[in-house]
Amino acid sequence: MLTISQRGCDMPASPIRKLVPYAEGAKRKGTKVYHLNIGQPDIETPPAILAAVKNIDFPVLEYSHSAGNESYRRKLVEYYKRWTIDVTHEQILVTTAGSEAILFAFFACMNPGDEVIIPEPFYANYNGFACTAGVNVVPILSTIETGFALPSIEAFEKVITPKTKAIILCNPNNPTGYLYSNEEVKDLARICRQHNLYLISDEAYREFCYDTTKPYLSPLQIEGLEENVILVDTVSKRYSSCGARVGALVTKNKAVYDTAMKFAQARLSPPGLGQILGEAAVDLPDDYFNEPKAEYKSRRDLLVERLNDMKGVFCPNPGGAFYAIAKLPIDDGDKFCQWLLEEFTHEGQTVMLAPASGFYSSPELGKNEVRFAYVINKESLAKAMDCLEIALKQYPGRTT
Amino acid sequence: MLTISQRGCDMPASPIRKLVPYAEGAKRKGTKVYHLNIGQPDIETPPAILAAVKNIDFPVLEYSHSAGNESYRRKLVEYYKRWTIDVTHEQILVTTAGSEAILFAFFACMNPGDEVIIPEPFYANYNGFACTAGVNVVPILSTIETGFALPSIEAFEKVITPKTKAIILCNPNNPTGYLYSNEEVKDLARICRQHNLYLISDEAYREFCYDTTKPYLSPLQIEGLEENVILVDTVSKRYSSCGARVGALVTKNKAVYDTAMKFAQARLSPPGLGQILGEAAVDLPDDYFNEPKAEYKSRRDLLVERLNDMKGVFCPNPGGAFYAIAKLPIDDGDKFCQWLLEEFTHEGQTVMLAPASGFYSSPELGKNEVRFAYVINKESLAKAMDCLEIALKQYPGRTT
Repeated sequence: MLTISQRGCDMPASPIRKLVPYAEGAKRKGTKVYHLNIGQPDIETPPAILAAVKNIDFPVLEYSHSAGNESYRRKLVEYYKRWTIDVTHEQILVTTAGSEAILFAFFACMNPGDEVIIPEPFYANYNGFACTAGVNVVPILSTIETGFALPSIEAFEKVITPKTKAIILCNPNNPTGYLYSNEEVKDLARICRQHNLYLISDEAYREFCYDTTKPYLSPLQIEGLEENVILVDTVSKRYSSCGARVGALVTKNKAVYDTAMKFAQARLSPPGLGQILGEAAVDLPDDYFNEPKAEYKSRRDLLVERLNDMKGVFCPNPGGAFYAIAKLPIDDGDKFCQWLLEEFTHEGQTVMLAPASGFYSSPELGKNEVRFAYVINKESLAKAMDCLEIALKQYPGRTT
Repeated sequence: MLTISQRGCDMPASPIRKLVPYAEGAKRKGTKVYHLNIGQPDIETPPAILAAVKNIDFPVLEYSHSAGNESYRRKLVEYYKRWTIDVTHEQILVTTAGSEAILFAFFACMNPGDEVIIPEPFYANYNGFACTAGVNVVPILSTIETGFALPSIEAFEKVITPKTKAIILCNPNNPTGYLYSNEEVKDLARICRQHNLYLISDEAYREFCYDTTKPYLSPLQIEGLEENVILVDTVSKRYSSCGARVGALVTKNKAVYDTAMKFAQARLSPPGLGQILGEAAVDLPDDYFNEPKAEYKSRRDLLVERLNDMKGVFCPNPGGAFYAIAKLPIDDGDKFCQWLLEEFTHEGQTVMLAPASGFYSSPELGKNEVRFAYVINKESLAKAMDCLEIALKQYPGRTT
């Protein structure tokens, strides 16, 4: 008999996309659905970087260098310099979005059966990449009560085994929006150095920090941690260019770089057209981020205020990215999110959210939590909050 | 100590790219290098499909569907219909080039330790993908004397074990250029059905068949083989668009499709700009291929004639793709190719070839063979042959 691999069976389906059929059903019935379920920003892709694509002028769309066009990597050196991250173009490997960068990091550093520690809740696709690489995810809990701050050093040390090879830090965090403090990042750096662990630093949302009391610190800026850090990056959110599929793996560890490069050579090159867009993005004026950042911040303020004004709802104020997790007075987030799409409407409208359970590795956690991606304009966001407020009053599984 | 994974250590470096530093050295000395070493076509990317990219008109470059834009998949249904391959858009998964399609096939169908049979010489990056997935490649020999025809059924049956999960057929073949006959494809189909094996059919060069006595047969056209076939495809060579990084996994096996889809969801979506190019390509006029095909054919004719006119050289006449392997009167192809770049010039020129050893899995095979990619114009190709002819007379390791 033809069989599917064990890894294929174990591979998780996307928890964010599993409600899609219900959303489609709602739309077929004529219901307007506000999408707060997925991190697809509505912010315009900067016209200048789309123009770079429109102005292409070459006879043949050739393979690029397996590490990405050298001109782009040299531009990225400038980009990182602005963040006082000093790297050379030979420490940057352009990848097919952040996804491939994470996969390369896993493939290069971990054997099947090895362990990676990730504070949960975490970006659900880490599970998929871990499954692909045969790596075991060891979650440690960060709680909504602390706003999803870094778990204690002791919590990390309790789960470190000889199989532990890496820790993943996503800062600012998806799905919690939590912005780690310099102290937290340095604490983590210490653990990694002491226990010889890689620190895989997912900085997809680096530009979107709203808490001015917490200056951003990348682990690559920490002296003495050069060999441990694998920075994974992407243009997706930074420039509202999710479809470009261009990211990067950045590391000063030559053995890791050279090994990742072998995986990169096997797939020949990263997307060529997306690289043109990415290269143009580095030349955007310094003040480009002011507008999207201000917009996200004001949406966050609206969202968090509205949520905390609802009876029985608690939402910590996230310091970055464009996500927030809230605790709702409900029995089960999965059921509630499905009910919102299947059963509920308010003035012909409803809201699509992501049940937080999908971001926890441990079963039963986050059952009464949902994640919000504030990627729609404030007017729509306010209407989505109206829907939610009324829905929470009508939902049969309300707990308080 | 921070360690590199076993898989990372085992991962092969690209055999095609390892001579690059010597080529760079030759160029620094002012030598003109004719590149016959890599399958980067010089044929113009059709201006109409580049125009589709230049004419993009949307405010946000969004994620596409994880399986690729539905509009593109529906177009591909039309494309395959022209080849009398009947599939629906829900049997097509758009991938990041052929590379990702092969990886998804491996991940979905094979466990670490499982075996895939591949007639050798074969596309070297299959080794990299197998290593990534922990799969063992079991090579069976096709020889230059037969023009690299399919090995006998018995040769396949001799190596099939309970761990064998799939056979890969690349037709027309890279690196040999061999075009498999309908009978050979049907023989292979029979083996796959009898032994419940997947047939991974790499059809990157489908359009480039020059032997009119051998009509092209895709395994997906064979009745009763629907569950076994995983077609992997790419726009790279077909439309001279290697940099687009757009391909497809096509299968009627729903379990395989659904499993591959989970890997696709983890990486969110294939390249968006490349998909626009790919979609436009399906609308190229039917006669688009006449010109590049005639051009490749006349280059092949020139190459094969010139090679066989050289004393001690044998090159079978390949029926498709844009590659040929020739046996040369030399001690070692790796040394010879390096010598061509390091030591040899003729009128300030030399030629870069790919040692065939890199396409054999078994060591010591193909030592006196080299691969030619006829991706430069005939004038340059003739000059490259002049270089080779003279080089073979001067090479210290000449054997006959």
